[in-house]
Amino acid sequence: MSGSLQAAGNGGVGQEMYRLIVELYPICRSITGDGVRQTLDIVRQHIPLTTHEVPTGTRVFDWVVPREWNIRGAYIKDSKGRTIVDFDDSNLHALNYSIPVRETVSLEELKQHLFTSERHPEWVPYRTSYYREDWGFCMAHSRYLELEDGDYEVTIDSTLENGSMTLGELVVKGQRSEEILVSTHTCHPSLCNDNLSGIALCTFLAKQLAESRPRYTYRFLFIPGTIGSITWLALNEDKLANIRMGIVVTLVGDDGPFTYKKTRNGDTELDSAVLHALEHSGSGYDVRQFIPYGYDERQYSSPGINLQVGCLTRTPFGEFPQYHTSADNLDFVKADKLAEALVVYQRIFAILEGNRTYRNRNPKCEPQLGRRGLYDKIGGENERQLNQMAILWVLNYSDEKHSLLQIAQQSGLPFADIRFAADMLLRCDLLEEVV
Amino acid sequence: MSGSLQAAGNGGVGQEMYRLIVELYPICRSITGDGVRQTLDIVRQHIPLTTHEVPTGTRVFDWVVPREWNIRGAYIKDSKGRTIVDFDDSNLHALNYSIPVRETVSLEELKQHLFTSERHPEWVPYRTSYYREDWGFCMAHSRYLELEDGDYEVTIDSTLENGSMTLGELVVKGQRSEEILVSTHTCHPSLCNDNLSGIALCTFLAKQLAESRPRYTYRFLFIPGTIGSITWLALNEDKLANIRMGIVVTLVGDDGPFTYKKTRNGDTELDSAVLHALEHSGSGYDVRQFIPYGYDERQYSSPGINLQVGCLTRTPFGEFPQYHTSADNLDFVKADKLAEALVVYQRIFAILEGNRTYRNRNPKCEPQLGRRGLYDKIGGENERQLNQMAILWVLNYSDEKHSLLQIAQQSGLPFADIRFAADMLLRCDLLEEVV
Amino acid sequence: MSGSLQAAGNGGVGQEMYRLIVELYPICRSITGDGVRQTLDIVRQHIPLTTHEVPTGTRVFDWVVPREWNIRGAYIKDSKGRTIVDFDDSNLHALNYSIPVRETVSLEELKQHLFTSERHPEWVPYRTSYYREDWGFCMAHSRYLELEDGDYEVTIDSTLENGSMTLGELVVKGQRSEEILVSTHTCHPSLCNDNLSGIALCTFLAKQLAESRPRYTYRFLFIPGTIGSITWLALNEDKLANIRMGIVVTLVGDDGPFTYKKTRNGDTELDSAVLHALEHSGSGYDVRQFIPYGYDERQYSSPGINLQVGCLTRTPFGEFPQYHTSADNLDFVKADKLAEALVVYQRIFAILEGNRTYRNRNPKCEPQLGRRGLYDKIGGENERQLNQMAILWVLNYSDEKHSLLQIAQQSGLPFADIRFAADMLLRCDLLEEVV
Repeated sequence: MSGSLQAAGNGGVGQEMYRLIVELYPICRSITGDGVRQTLDIVRQHIPLTTHEVPTGTRVFDWVVPREWNIRGAYIKDSKGRTIVDFDDSNLHALNYSIPVRETVSLEELKQHLFTSERHPEWVPYRTSYYREDWGFCMAHSRYLELEDGDYEVTIDSTLENGSMTLGELVVKGQRSEEILVSTHTCHPSLCNDNLSGIALCTFLAKQLAESRPRYTYRFLFIPGTIGSITWLALNEDKLANIRMGIVVTLVGDDGPFTYKKTRNGDTELDSAVLHALEHSGSGYDVRQFIPYGYDERQYSSPGINLQVGCLTRTPFGEFPQYHTSADNLDFVKADKLAEALVVYQRIFAILEGNRTYRNRNPKCEPQLGRRGLYDKIGGENERQLNQMAILWVLNYSDEKHSLLQIAQQSGLPFADIRFAADMLLRCDLLEEVV
Repeated sequence: MSGSLQAAGNGGVGQEMYRLIVELYPICRSITGDGVRQTLDIVRQHIPLTTHEVPTGTRVFDWVVPREWNIRGAYIKDSKGRTIVDFDDSNLHALNYSIPVRETVSLEELKQHLFTSERHPEWVPYRTSYYREDWGFCMAHSRYLELEDGDYEVTIDSTLENGSMTLGELVVKGQRSEEILVSTHTCHPSLCNDNLSGIALCTFLAKQLAESRPRYTYRFLFIPGTIGSITWLALNEDKLANIRMGIVVTLVGDDGPFTYKKTRNGDTELDSAVLHALEHSGSGYDVRQFIPYGYDERQYSSPGINLQVGCLTRTPFGEFPQYHTSADNLDFVKADKLAEALVVYQRIFAILEGNRTYRNRNPKCEPQLGRRGLYDKIGGENERQLNQMAILWVLNYSDEKHSLLQIAQQSGLPFADIRFAADMLLRCDLLEEVV
Repeated sequence: MSGSLQAAGNGGVGQEMYRLIVELYPICRSITGDGVRQTLDIVRQHIPLTTHEVPTGTRVFDWVVPREWNIRGAYIKDSKGRTIVDFDDSNLHALNYSIPVRETVSLEELKQHLFTSERHPEWVPYRTSYYREDWGFCMAHSRYLELEDGDYEVTIDSTLENGSMTLGELVVKGQRSEEILVSTHTCHPSLCNDNLSGIALCTFLAKQLAESRPRYTYRFLFIPGTIGSITWLALNEDKLANIRMGIVVTLVGDDGPFTYKKTRNGDTELDSAVLHALEHSGSGYDVRQFIPYGYDERQYSSPGINLQVGCLTRTPFGEFPQYHTSADNLDFVKADKLAEALVVYQRIFAILEGNRTYRNRNPKCEPQLGRRGLYDKIGGENERQLNQMAILWVLNYSDEKHSLLQIAQQSGLPFADIRFAADMLLRCDLLEEVV
């Protein structure tokens, strides 16, 4: 399997995902505003996304949809008129959700509104102030140290007004109404791995699923973190009972190993499917228990919502130095890594799509495989035929209690081999599905 | 315990087992035919085996009892009349279940009917063709490479005709009707470890059990692999409910460590008993999960039969180079290894025989052991008396929920010590059996 | 936490505990007699202990309260009148519960009544003979080897007469009637770690608990080992249903790591509390499964009593060379080690006192923490705020199924942080207790 994973990276889809990231990179996103709308418009060129505008002031559980934030420009100039930082160079320079400001301030006062990273003095950190009115700038610490006494002109040309929050949604209808939720956040400005890699993966995953005819219905959400998932959940409580499981997609473009954060339950079909796909991926990976911190799985897994939602990333948030800085840029994510991640997600869904529980229709002793063409002809050799082992596993464990995925896990064989064996046995009328 | 295990090897029973193997070695066995009958006749000189003849054509679940195969000779001669291989040298030379043939063929055609082992060029491999009509010869690869162009005279003096398949069975009646199944296969020709070691062990185990007065009833099956167990199961479905557990015996004469393949359930009383015996055997051993491949445990553990059957061997099949070749011969099995294996099997059955669940009749605090003679007289010393620990374990855990075997496993003490402590406590009326 | 543990050792309580041990050390205790009464009288200067006198001959389950033993002196003199051993030097010289004797005996006969330790030839071993009438002396093996042939005058001025056994008890009333049992033994003569350290710890633990206003009711027992707990249990069977858990205190003054012996169930709230306190203690520790041997947990955990009782010591009995010898003296126990042990016990009880189960009153998604002052103001930074993680853990797992202690264990956060987060959430009406 590892061979084809590598091959995937060379195909065109990695390049297509990367090109989408390039196109989305310059846009200044936040939890509300035109940046999100532009982003979803571009995604809509690939998949038929629906958008929902939720008005400012809408009550969503314990929260209220905030005023809409938009920004056109921002800069600091020193007393000689020299530009210190400019939003046009990087939208990270403006504190995200900064209130408008147009003032001349002393260096001392200015410093109370500046955010830098001492640890990475050349990088611009990413900061937000959603729920406390403030203005501010983020900048390289090295530049900050050079600031001289004197007055500074600060301008943030932003608006914070009644408007709406924009949620993107795509339902890929399957043969069954039961749903799998796939969620990615859309609220980060020019940050590639944390945000755009997830958007790109979901876009191309949705595209591929829409072209297949899946068994499950897949609901893709492209939403701002926290307030977005809370809002969607509050407005769609009637849909929750139908959601069998879900996964949060982000941080899939760096070159770190895959890291799976389990569902709160920790032992669901999704957990098994992800672990199986990773075990057979041929590369290293890491698995972690659920903790109530991270991305929107926090909301999906709150005790009153209680969906079983995992999160599959490469290097987890906060564990790579570029996290939430200007260094999470177009150099940090790679086409082949994006493509490889897409393949892993596709394999996970292929497992979920193909997973069934069967009853062996010839449960007393093994059936005679030879006369059904399921047995190699000359017995006695030393090697085991792989497919034949899969056939024996499926026959023995198709006792109504074991799904094919459980059989794959117990046997150590790849799910694809088990699924193929079940197909061969179905053709011989040796299995029937347990519904 | 290891001391007595070693001692056992020096006793006479190992030699007796080995002598039985020597006697059985030359016979050409298969899944049907006179070879099996001769084998069971010789076993019957030791234990009062019953045989069942099941006619060709009998339907047994998904299978049909095949025609009976017998063979008197087989050879290949080159154009100069020189013998290339001869059944009289080794019955492995004839493809087992080969149809009769009497032809002159070219080297090219001959080669399509020859089986060799490139990895072990001096050994003759063992091959069968039970369910596909074919003829063939097995030979050393080194000899095969020397074959010169030209015509060859091939003769296989075999018959494949309506007849019957022979099953051997011995029921050792116990105090209870509940049964333990002990199964060994009888279908391999001149192969010592894979086949004859199991037959020898079962013979002497049955003999010893018949001389004791066991609690369980023991049912020994001496049957051809696969078709034999399927046939016995199909013809004896009414007996299955009475079988509490079972074990498949084979490959017990080489010098590899014991290897236990667990029951399908994996956590039965048999599994505990075998593991306990092995843990306290003083030598290394290996334990494996159930897989639906191997010997007749495959059939016994099929979902519609669902007996709890393990398999205790030394080196497992396919994991020693001599497996299914002419090198699995009289040099490969040893009297002391056979005797040691018999001791382990006897200990397992001693555990099962002695395992009971009791109720402590003085459950409130410890009883005063001193006035019952169950306590060493002067308290305060540093060492624990082994027997006294066993007494305390049995008293504390005889709460109707723990069997003696479970107490042995939890305490780490040998089952014999726990059983002895229970006997002492029974004598003082401090225990009563929970039925 | 380790910082404060060390600090604790420097405080005065360790010195106070040590002084109490110094005061109790010379007294010759046994399972009955004035030694125990004097001991409890001294303890009563610290806490309002109640004592019960249980008459000789009282039937207690399978046992009978023995005659009362008292001793005034004991010695061996050689034929020249030189004193070989003298009770006045160490009460360990007299076999504990020795019957009176006044005789002249040969060296040969004397030797049948002498107990020494070859392994530690300078130390006097501690031996008892409670339930078999005997007389004897314990002495250093080195001295024993010097004994010369000849007659010896042996005198043991003891009495073994009808009387009573003395049990000490203190109930610290809590808000609830549900009880936690704390038990220590009082039957060892001049032995510091095994006996006096437990008495000292229980004394100061009871004092501190009586000054707080605990939720649970705490029942402290100061009793002779085995016969004392059996007697208390037999006379107080009506109280058992009220006892939620218990702990046996002893061996807390040496400098070995803490060792916790689990309850028989092995997975109770007490086990979790002790393990949590030890995990966060900053020092190494050892955990062991329950075995039906040791101190009075043997009786409390007998199947008919079935209390869940653990035992927390430092080095376990029999695992330090000084155990049950004259070397378990005032040099062997240390004030700082006693104080550190007291702190660990206090933390365990603080956890049990503070452990509750809550229901999240805002279970659908996270509540908005910011407007309640529970969120750091500027998002986006790399570090996690510890308290905020505790808040998220409590919110997510307050689903009626997880206690705060379980949340602490699952999160890896100290119980104190989790308890503090719950307090903050209670203040915001975000939690309600599940009763």
